[in-house]
Amino acid sequence: MLGRLNHVALAVPDLARAARRYSETLGATVSEPQALPEHGVTVVFVELDNTKVELLEPLGEASPIAAFLAKNPKGGMHHICYEVADLKAARDRMVAGGARVLGDGEPKIGAHGRPVLFIHPGDMFGTLTELEEV
Amino acid sequence: MLGRLNHVALAVPDLARAARRYSETLGATVSEPQALPEHGVTVVFVELDNTKVELLEPLGEASPIAAFLAKNPKGGMHHICYEVADLKAARDRMVAGGARVLGDGEPKIGAHGRPVLFIHPGDMFGTLTELEEV
Repeated sequence: MLGRLNHVALAVPDLARAARRYSETLGATVSEPQALPEHGVTVVFVELDNTKVELLEPLGEASPIAAFLAKNPKGGMHHICYEVADLKAARDRMVAGGARVLGDGEPKIGAHGRPVLFIHPGDMFGTLTELEEV
Repeated sequence: MLGRLNHVALAVPDLARAARRYSETLGATVSEPQALPEHGVTVVFVELDNTKVELLEPLGEASPIAAFLAKNPKGGMHHICYEVADLKAARDRMVAGGARVLGDGEPKIGAHGRPVLFIHPGDMFGTLTELEEV
């Protein structure tokens, strides 16, 4: 059921500085910053040969990563996203297995324009886990 | 310079339970647990289509993830590992860019039998970052 690792998201307090570290020092290909106000983040994509890392900086008052950065002011690993073919089937298996889905439990349209949902980190061994239908 | 994302490592307090969650609930292919006493961990590999996730449980008295789990008893995202073609060149660029390499700064043989080193999370926006020569 689990497909590709879609991305790993790293929350950073200073997106421009983090993007320079990845591009100039590590020699990675990084995107221009993209503001996603409806998701409360500005993102830079670090393009790797097999997947991507997303550097996230808070955007706006109600950013979903603001609390994380308040707790981890230097930044840190925020979540991991796996691809699944059938998101509702994956959700139903997770719920039947005792895992909580964040929000109202229904898939939302994520930052890539595809349905996503998040599994509570307390039910995934401390790791906030996103599932994306691809 | 940055190549593939080699793996994401998640520290977990109960490896058998975490492996079952990935295999039975999420339908992923997972390896048998592998004890790596020289690295202080027991690992289960979650094989994804494009990379792998490593579930790590402490092994022995001096496990490098014991302190992390003491601070994060439910577990959490521990580190990310990128592949590079020339590890010493990558290290030298990181050091020239102001980043600290853990330990004595020299590559060690990692859990996959290849040279690795770790960049201080304080110099990578809170993310412990492993570089592996492939």
